[in-house]
Amino acid sequence: MYPESIRNLIEAFKFLPGIGEKTAERLAFSVLGLEDEQVSFFSDSILSVKEKIHPCPICNTFTDSDKCIVCSDLTRDKETLCVVEDTKNVFLFERLGMFHGMYHVLEGLISPLDGINPEDIGLDKLIDRIKNENFKEVIFAFRPSIEGETTALYIKRVLEGMGVIVTRLASGVPMGADMEYVDSLTLERALNDRKEIE
Amino acid sequence: MYPESIRNLIEAFKFLPGIGEKTAERLAFSVLGLEDEQVSFFSDSILSVKEKIHPCPICNTFTDSDKCIVCSDLTRDKETLCVVEDTKNVFLFERLGMFHGMYHVLEGLISPLDGINPEDIGLDKLIDRIKNENFKEVIFAFRPSIEGETTALYIKRVLEGMGVIVTRLASGVPMGADMEYVDSLTLERALNDRKEIE
Repeated sequence: MYPESIRNLIEAFKFLPGIGEKTAERLAFSVLGLEDEQVSFFSDSILSVKEKIHPCPICNTFTDSDKCIVCSDLTRDKETLCVVEDTKNVFLFERLGMFHGMYHVLEGLISPLDGINPEDIGLDKLIDRIKNENFKEVIFAFRPSIEGETTALYIKRVLEGMGVIVTRLASGVPMGADMEYVDSLTLERALNDRKEIE
Repeated sequence: MYPESIRNLIEAFKFLPGIGEKTAERLAFSVLGLEDEQVSFFSDSILSVKEKIHPCPICNTFTDSDKCIVCSDLTRDKETLCVVEDTKNVFLFERLGMFHGMYHVLEGLISPLDGINPEDIGLDKLIDRIKNENFKEVIFAFRPSIEGETTALYIKRVLEGMGVIVTRLASGVPMGADMEYVDSLTLERALNDRKEIE
């Protein structure tokens, strides 16, 4: 019913996660309202992101250079490694600007129910790095979840005897939260992890 | 902080209405996960929609042919004209498959508060069509709103004496609606437009 080129663009938008028929239609029509330069910039950006971006050979963070900005920065603290489940989280921490160590991006989290086992998330590369570099502390910054806990516990066990301190992000009641809206798992964790006021 | 090509794609997604920084980031990263063919299809579709799509010279519906599918269909009822505010609404009615007349797409609705006056929405073309073709009925299918009413009343006044019946879509309580969630303007309109049960 739609002209073919509109139909195609709707289908293309539907490749993206969380975009269904209605949203894809709205977006496709809005492309018709863009300026010519915006349209060619948009079209070029899609091609070039796929062409130029690849995982950093050291830590897997997406980069368009040989090494990512963190791995190529000589001023970083080489003794602390933050392990994340997704390259986006590296940018999250970098935006925060409070962490000055190195990163390692896994290829997901262990999730036996989804058939994702330890050998599927690129652990060898992480273990090799920890063996060969001089990290004193490895921080797990996974989302608080069964998969996050499983992955952290698994890696901690593998690292035993290597002389590195293994930590995880604190989890608990988020700042500014209304207590009645905090879910019970979070509350339980906050209670277990309670800290003495100094 | 992001590699340049990711940054560019994020900016490109932000051209689209309703897409802010966070969503643009999520979409840009998801493009990295697409297959190569999907990426080039996506990129090509954006260019070609802008290249090929133009308003139908008769009714303004977007088309990639000389005339739109409705204007080039000889079996349509040439005595009924449905006037809409947006080309998308033509496809909405066509999908419904219940209307067999012709369409005319305005360039928006009159809205003095936003500085959109009668001369800004392409009324001349509509009036010329009504003068030159043989419509018996003109249906306004605008969204129920002050702008919709204003535009309908304005055109109705211009058409006076031309011998065409002027109608608008019924408005009222939508099918399946829970009465307590119907807003008071809709309820008022539904009461005013009440129909005798036959």
